[in-house]
Amino acid sequence: MPQGFHGELSQVGGTLVTMAKAVRETMRQASTALLTTDHTSAQLVLERGAEITVLFRLVEDRVYDLVGRRRLSPAELPVTMTAVRVAADLERMGELAVHVARSALRRHPAPAVAPELTTLFAAMSEVADRLAGKVVAALADQDAVLAAGLDQDDDAMDQLHRRLFAVMLSPDWPLGVEAAVDGALLGRFYERYADHAVNVAGHVVDLARPAGEARSPR
Amino acid sequence: MPQGFHGELSQVGGTLVTMAKAVRETMRQASTALLTTDHTSAQLVLERGAEITVLFRLVEDRVYDLVGRRRLSPAELPVTMTAVRVAADLERMGELAVHVARSALRRHPAPAVAPELTTLFAAMSEVADRLAGKVVAALADQDAVLAAGLDQDDDAMDQLHRRLFAVMLSPDWPLGVEAAVDGALLGRFYERYADHAVNVAGHVVDLARPAGEARSPR
Repeated sequence: MPQGFHGELSQVGGTLVTMAKAVRETMRQASTALLTTDHTSAQLVLERGAEITVLFRLVEDRVYDLVGRRRLSPAELPVTMTAVRVAADLERMGELAVHVARSALRRHPAPAVAPELTTLFAAMSEVADRLAGKVVAALADQDAVLAAGLDQDDDAMDQLHRRLFAVMLSPDWPLGVEAAVDGALLGRFYERYADHAVNVAGHVVDLARPAGEARSPR
Repeated sequence: MPQGFHGELSQVGGTLVTMAKAVRETMRQASTALLTTDHTSAQLVLERGAEITVLFRLVEDRVYDLVGRRRLSPAELPVTMTAVRVAADLERMGELAVHVARSALRRHPAPAVAPELTTLFAAMSEVADRLAGKVVAALADQDAVLAAGLDQDDDAMDQLHRRLFAVMLSPDWPLGVEAAVDGALLGRFYERYADHAVNVAGHVVDLARPAGEARSPR
């Protein structure tokens, strides 16, 4: 069944939504593994991380195939290439979920998160999930307004990240070096996850822009 | 002056070499800033990081322009797109150098690296520089054999990274939580830098492969 450019591009868009949903679910499971020391969840995350990479390659192959077959206009080409960037950011989010799960597995059956930090990491994982949920919705509906609203959640993540360091570096920190090192790395994984979610949102905003306008410097 | 596909692509390749050289120099300065608490070097790194991002956009724009104007063959297109991936990895390496410099600035005029870790970080920065040097040479000469040789240096980096954690998490660690948290994050920056150098090398190997063969799953 022959399809126009927009039909083919929207097929790629469908794969991006699938990817974003998988990324969200994977980080959820990673957070569960982290906060409840659930070994099965952690193992599942590793498998799903590999699936997300396969989806990334699928998007790349489809885009290259599309670009190779059609002579795209100067407006169509950047839009098409943006799909690859979105996929790359989503893949990186999946990788960060895998890093969280690996941290959980490394300390299993002990918790990788010190009891003093559980509340903070629960909050970070909630913000991460909210960001991923908005990414899914923004991609599914090509909703630039929704995409622009991610900055607030990103600020919330940055605040939690700063509070995490304040707790660990305070003279009252009751735990040792290992708990703080784990906390620092885990904090960075969640913070980077949020950054990549914001990148995806930025691309959605670019995609919604009428052809000819400059893209944002992301 | 009209140019063929290969002429245009080699122009892009020239920009990638420029980028790789800038990335190498930037990480060198970041390491100097880190190990000698040199404020001026750290400031320079922030400026050069911005320049590297500009070069990344230049590569993207040129590739999109090239792909948009020419009807590339199924063999030419992936090669062309690989340039964007290389540029993205190099940009990320530049960002990691900026993270190192920011860590140095955050503790300035105190050193961000505890005296106990100076030797390890000096070794990590040497391996990072060796990797970057090979990336420059492999890109400049399209040398797949040289590119394949990066794995050894990456192993060296992983070993140093593991040793770093062993030192910080040993019961003999004489310093507090802050020094270990700084060390953990800095260690991760150097390790990721090496990972991205290996990615670039993998792309060079792909580029050197005769058209039609499958690319490696990077």
